Amino acid sequence: MKGNKSSSGFRAGNTEITNPSSSSSTGSSRLGVLISHLSVSPPHELHLHRQPSMASEKEAALAAVPSHSHTIFDKIINKEIPSNVVYEDDEVLAFRDIDPQAPTHILIIPKVKDGLIGLSKAEERHCEILGRLLYTAKLVAKQEGLEQGFRIVINDGPNGGQSVYHLHIHLLGGRQMNWPPG
Amino acid sequence: MKGNKSSSGFRAGNTEITNPSSSSSTGSSRLGVLISHLSVSPPHELHLHRQPSMASEKEAALAAVPSHSHTIFDKIINKEIPSNVVYEDDEVLAFRDIDPQAPTHILIIPKVKDGLIGLSKAEERHCEILGRLLYTAKLVAKQEGLEQGFRIVINDGPNGGQSVYHLHIHLLGGRQMNWPPG
Repeated sequence: MKGNKSSSGFRAGNTEITNPSSSSSTGSSRLGVLISHLSVSPPHELHLHRQPSMASEKEAALAAVPSHSHTIFDKIINKEIPSNVVYEDDEVLAFRDIDPQAPTHILIIPKVKDGLIGLSKAEERHCEILGRLLYTAKLVAKQEGLEQGFRIVINDGPNGGQSVYHLHIHLLGGRQMNWPPG
Repeated sequence: MKGNKSSSGFRAGNTEITNPSSSSSTGSSRLGVLISHLSVSPPHELHLHRQPSMASEKEAALAAVPSHSHTIFDKIINKEIPSNVVYEDDEVLAFRDIDPQAPTHILIIPKVKDGLIGLSKAEERHCEILGRLLYTAKLVAKQEGLEQGFRIVINDGPNGGQSVYHLHIHLLGGRQMNWPPG
């Protein structure tokens, strides 16, 4: 398996920013910890991974401005802020969503953005990393024990509900997913 | 653009099985037409693309049995039953979902299944086709004029809501998508 770390290396510490069991009350103080680490990411980019309500999620997506500038994910990739990493290789990083929508909710991102602020910006040259991201999602699903199934989601643009402009795949599992998908 | 047909070749006839505006009453008679074409696909595999209610969608997914045998998609690929094709090349076919959950709702599938009954069955060798499928989704989204964004969904297994065991990507757009994604 390409670039795969040993199983003992998959999980970083279950830190304040990434604990999926955090309640909304502890979430507030945890956000304070998180914000103290931030300098470049505008506040709206935190909303996707903090505010559980559908309305605020939509607001975050509608407020987000597509941009090639750095996002919070760059700081996660560079370990400038903590995250609960579940998989990492040379090309891909996977970590738990701070505002999980299912018992398992993981984000899978390319470490090098290369213009991929969203899927709508994909070019022919990105096919390799796109396939690698989906294959990594499969590996992580297996690692998480999601034998009963899972859902993959990629949001693009305001209508899709994208609030961080660095391509990311959502992997959700551990409960029955419903239809329509949002 | 690899293997892309001319734009005039993207759209097949807007046939009975694939008309996204079909009502539930006409849907019944249309299902009759569809069933008359079927011989190998068990009835539950039709549910995903016919019954709009969330409950029946879940039932279809829970009733579906993962199998490497042929599905309704093989008949669509082989043009044995009509579908509203919006994109086709040597590797990939994209056609409108019979039970759309958004103004634009398209399924994107590999023409050769090669063991990919779902994403959970992906092997390293599948990375190329996985990337090609996501890139095709981007091309189709652009073709459909989804400048305001879209959502990509892949269901795997009963928990994910998968009812046809031939890997397929859902592309949804033309409305604001909500959160959580099902």
